[in-house]
Amino acid sequence: MREHRPIVHCISNYVTSNDCANILLACGASPIMSDEPDEAEDVVSFASAVCLNLGTPNERKFETMKRAGRAANARGIPVILDPVGAGSSRHRTGMARELLDCVRFSVIRGNASEIRALYGIAGATGGVDAAAGEGDAADVKEIAKKLAEKTHAVVSASGVTDIVTDGARVYMIHNGHPMMSAVTGTGCQLSVLTAAFAAVCGNDFLSAAATAAAEMGLAGELAHEMLRKGEGSGTYRARIIDVIYGMTGEVLEKGARYEI
Amino acid sequence: MREHRPIVHCISNYVTSNDCANILLACGASPIMSDEPDEAEDVVSFASAVCLNLGTPNERKFETMKRAGRAANARGIPVILDPVGAGSSRHRTGMARELLDCVRFSVIRGNASEIRALYGIAGATGGVDAAAGEGDAADVKEIAKKLAEKTHAVVSASGVTDIVTDGARVYMIHNGHPMMSAVTGTGCQLSVLTAAFAAVCGNDFLSAAATAAAEMGLAGELAHEMLRKGEGSGTYRARIIDVIYGMTGEVLEKGARYEI
Amino acid sequence: MREHRPIVHCISNYVTSNDCANILLACGASPIMSDEPDEAEDVVSFASAVCLNLGTPNERKFETMKRAGRAANARGIPVILDPVGAGSSRHRTGMARELLDCVRFSVIRGNASEIRALYGIAGATGGVDAAAGEGDAADVKEIAKKLAEKTHAVVSASGVTDIVTDGARVYMIHNGHPMMSAVTGTGCQLSVLTAAFAAVCGNDFLSAAATAAAEMGLAGELAHEMLRKGEGSGTYRARIIDVIYGMTGEVLEKGARYEI
Repeated sequence: MREHRPIVHCISNYVTSNDCANILLACGASPIMSDEPDEAEDVVSFASAVCLNLGTPNERKFETMKRAGRAANARGIPVILDPVGAGSSRHRTGMARELLDCVRFSVIRGNASEIRALYGIAGATGGVDAAAGEGDAADVKEIAKKLAEKTHAVVSASGVTDIVTDGARVYMIHNGHPMMSAVTGTGCQLSVLTAAFAAVCGNDFLSAAATAAAEMGLAGELAHEMLRKGEGSGTYRARIIDVIYGMTGEVLEKGARYEI
Repeated sequence: MREHRPIVHCISNYVTSNDCANILLACGASPIMSDEPDEAEDVVSFASAVCLNLGTPNERKFETMKRAGRAANARGIPVILDPVGAGSSRHRTGMARELLDCVRFSVIRGNASEIRALYGIAGATGGVDAAAGEGDAADVKEIAKKLAEKTHAVVSASGVTDIVTDGARVYMIHNGHPMMSAVTGTGCQLSVLTAAFAAVCGNDFLSAAATAAAEMGLAGELAHEMLRKGEGSGTYRARIIDVIYGMTGEVLEKGARYEI
Repeated sequence: MREHRPIVHCISNYVTSNDCANILLACGASPIMSDEPDEAEDVVSFASAVCLNLGTPNERKFETMKRAGRAANARGIPVILDPVGAGSSRHRTGMARELLDCVRFSVIRGNASEIRALYGIAGATGGVDAAAGEGDAADVKEIAKKLAEKTHAVVSASGVTDIVTDGARVYMIHNGHPMMSAVTGTGCQLSVLTAAFAAVCGNDFLSAAATAAAEMGLAGELAHEMLRKGEGSGTYRARIIDVIYGMTGEVLEKGARYEI
């Protein structure tokens, strides 16, 4: 990663874009944040991956997402979808549906309820629906596998156990810390980290998504260990980026806890 | 708060939205940041409070504010107004006027000059005007009371002494630290914190606004005590969120300094 | 600076706007972030400098930039241009060209490739072009001088050595730390800091830009010295602002390393 320094084009939300840019720099990648339709193709032309994030949506940005996604497909570079808030409003659900229709994604990275909502969109009949609630890890695993089959994308479903699957193989990743949910944007950060790994993985998107999930979860664990008395979620936010900045292959291999 | 985990719909500005989301998470609430008109009603439908912030305004967001404010009024959930920069441009003053006309607010939270500007808008004749300057705490108290009477909202005017009033009763809150003004967004953070307390206060908005003001001010004091040699406003920003994250009812009760 | 407390109107990007606001507060200035066209002239009317940043561009913001730039020219207050990403897309290059046509800038502050792109725009023939690559400090110096001559602006080109020139005199500033490139927005922060110094320099924009570059670079050095074991780019980001907050004239004079 630090050798290739892949450029990741992020069409982001304004709440977490600073954290996303900083975690990309910390891991050795290079962010370009742009949501202007008229420069979508130009920016994609020198990027190594594209990450589309549905947070704080608007029509202009949505148009940019479609243009950038199609251009990335044409160039054969990976596109990652973070369906922030899918299922929480008809508007966002509609946006997610349209994106799934017109862009091929390499990885879809969301939390369990977002993955469930996308699965509903993708055409489940008589099966899972939003009313079924969050379900347990086994449920999420089945839904993630089916969504992966339907979309031909790797699905990365974040939770206490992260599930990363291409529909056939499944990684269950046990890294992470509950305090991560007290910091906004740790999910968005995982998505751009996934995009950075996807850019340098030689099309092994399953490994890329699993590695990113393990690294982010491990960063959450190690950052928590660094906290001193009185330090809370404000400092923790910076510490997560600190750990990613200092991460090495050895630390990651030693700390990653997963099963296939 | 941490038990109810209220969802606060923030129509925010892009400068401080990350801090606002993080302070909501730190206090035990759950933020939704969205300024898309087409999902305003959907988002309000599962929120427990709405906070409208006039910073970095634009027409699209203003439309969302009106739709979300009306939907929240219809559902009977509290709406908080942070009139950032009211009085500093005719455009923002006009936006504030229109919002006061079409939305009923539970709490209006701003600094003294913004509260003064809103009072001018709300129709003072022959009385206070912008040219009168900042005035002292006694002046601000009178203006806040009158604005509360006119708008039927609790008014929370921040300053060296925070004044929180429903027009009849007045809290004078002495918590806070001068260094808070060296960090952008501490006012915006107080507003979303006020929205979170308003969501769980059983319609006692006066207590909610006063509690939020005392907690934010106390966080500013305790965060300052935590600073080590060489640490400045960059670290202080994170420490304020750290303190809110660790805040307990006992610490707040012991540290709050106010008179009614 | 801390005495005059100049108000800097920033038309910013949403990725780094929080850091820009905080560094302005840290140095003793007062930020106003607004990109709404309809309040451009009102905000300029009480500002002491304007900083236009091309990051995360859109048409609305571009319109605001032109209106604010012209209003600032009419009032005789300094305008600073940060041509973020100039040369990376035809869209941004076109925006930069149009701004150079309709606004007189006091300082243009960018990295070497952005300055090179602007020089190409400004009408070099048969000379430097984007294909020529980054070049060395001597190249950048020549290009910066020529751009300064063409635009009648001071040009501040950031790199390992910062070059600040009005076309005749040249400051070579050796402050800075490589780790600054691992934090998003240190360039944007330098631009608003330059605007703050420009506001209080009595029209000596060359000294203002050079002082800002030295202060920012020195902050990067001192912030790096403060890092403890395990701390990385997340903490470093806050430390840079800490150092600016605590900066004194004596520290700056002692630490600045430059030649004219």
